[in-house]
Amino acid sequence: MATPVKVHGPPLSTAVSRVLACLIEKDVQFQLIPVNMSKGEHKSSDFLKIQPFGQVPAFQDESTSLFESRAICRYVCEKYAEKGNKGLYGSNPLAKASIDQWLEAEGQSFNPPSSVLVFQLAFAPRMKIKQDQSLINQNHDKLAKVLEVYEKRLGESRFLAGDEFSLADLSHLPNTHYLVNATDRGELFTSKKNVGRWWAEISSRDSWKKVVDMQKHSS
Amino acid sequence: MATPVKVHGPPLSTAVSRVLACLIEKDVQFQLIPVNMSKGEHKSSDFLKIQPFGQVPAFQDESTSLFESRAICRYVCEKYAEKGNKGLYGSNPLAKASIDQWLEAEGQSFNPPSSVLVFQLAFAPRMKIKQDQSLINQNHDKLAKVLEVYEKRLGESRFLAGDEFSLADLSHLPNTHYLVNATDRGELFTSKKNVGRWWAEISSRDSWKKVVDMQKHSS
Repeated sequence: MATPVKVHGPPLSTAVSRVLACLIEKDVQFQLIPVNMSKGEHKSSDFLKIQPFGQVPAFQDESTSLFESRAICRYVCEKYAEKGNKGLYGSNPLAKASIDQWLEAEGQSFNPPSSVLVFQLAFAPRMKIKQDQSLINQNHDKLAKVLEVYEKRLGESRFLAGDEFSLADLSHLPNTHYLVNATDRGELFTSKKNVGRWWAEISSRDSWKKVVDMQKHSS
Repeated sequence: MATPVKVHGPPLSTAVSRVLACLIEKDVQFQLIPVNMSKGEHKSSDFLKIQPFGQVPAFQDESTSLFESRAICRYVCEKYAEKGNKGLYGSNPLAKASIDQWLEAEGQSFNPPSSVLVFQLAFAPRMKIKQDQSLINQNHDKLAKVLEVYEKRLGESRFLAGDEFSLADLSHLPNTHYLVNATDRGELFTSKKNVGRWWAEISSRDSWKKVVDMQKHSS
């Protein structure tokens, strides 16, 4: 049996849960290694050796060490091409280009405003950090504009990159999960015909339900 | 002779110039199609058909239409694997994973603060937009922290992803070019031993010099 890959970081982190969802889709065995961020373990010199920016997750597969959740997901799909969901990163160059395009749209257009909203609306209150209302309003508007483009796109195809669930859809799960379930902004998604239908479908995948379960059982 | 690929957008745009540098490295013929952004052509219904977010660049190769500069670069490297600089996106899975990792670091960690500084310090004055000093200070500090990580990394390897110039380095050219040549923040790069050496090397590549020349001859 192959040695499981290692994921360093808490499943409550959106970037960690992106990698976990990918590993479960690809049916790749993994070992989750806790990083106590409230104790600053992600800034320790040992951790910085595998993640020089002091962020989570860090990832290890035999002698390979990687960071950046979307780069880890791409690597997992390429290295374990024959395992699990074989279409997750496309099965031909054109499908892959479409997935890369929407994965970049997620990283560049969706992630910035949605991350701010997740932090401000879901995490700041728990951490007793004062919310910044003008930042919230600004990013709410930005996200609403991005989701208008998604609404149109998802009226033309079942998933973002085409007819199949892919890494591009998967990458939206962590932030959207918090926005729908832990803030008052869920309607941004659920009130839209196509985005709502898409969210219901991707969030009910077994892989994502397992990640949510891991989040519930962690602290 | 193959039909040239089409790049829609002005070379002065950082995202457009990222794609141009990649096409020149890969020795792929292209046709540049002007998009007059001051006239709002990037928001026209025809343009939105190929770039639904109304941003530049948009890219076309025969019947393939793509957006997002880093996704376009990945596609160009895969589709034209046998042309021009063959190592630009790695020649084995591990090299590629390292390039993806540092390309994501550029997109997620380097690009956000450096884009704000480029806009605030180089573009806002020309467009007679008032600068936001607190935003400038905040993003200066963020970028300085990112460059500390780069300084360490570039003390260990000649380029970000390893011993060869790659898409990961290339992707840093557009923003860094403006910061070094059109703002007072060039020292963030040039005062650092390893980052300074790296910048001197990557910015003197023929491909990038050609892009800068195209920028000078456009408006």
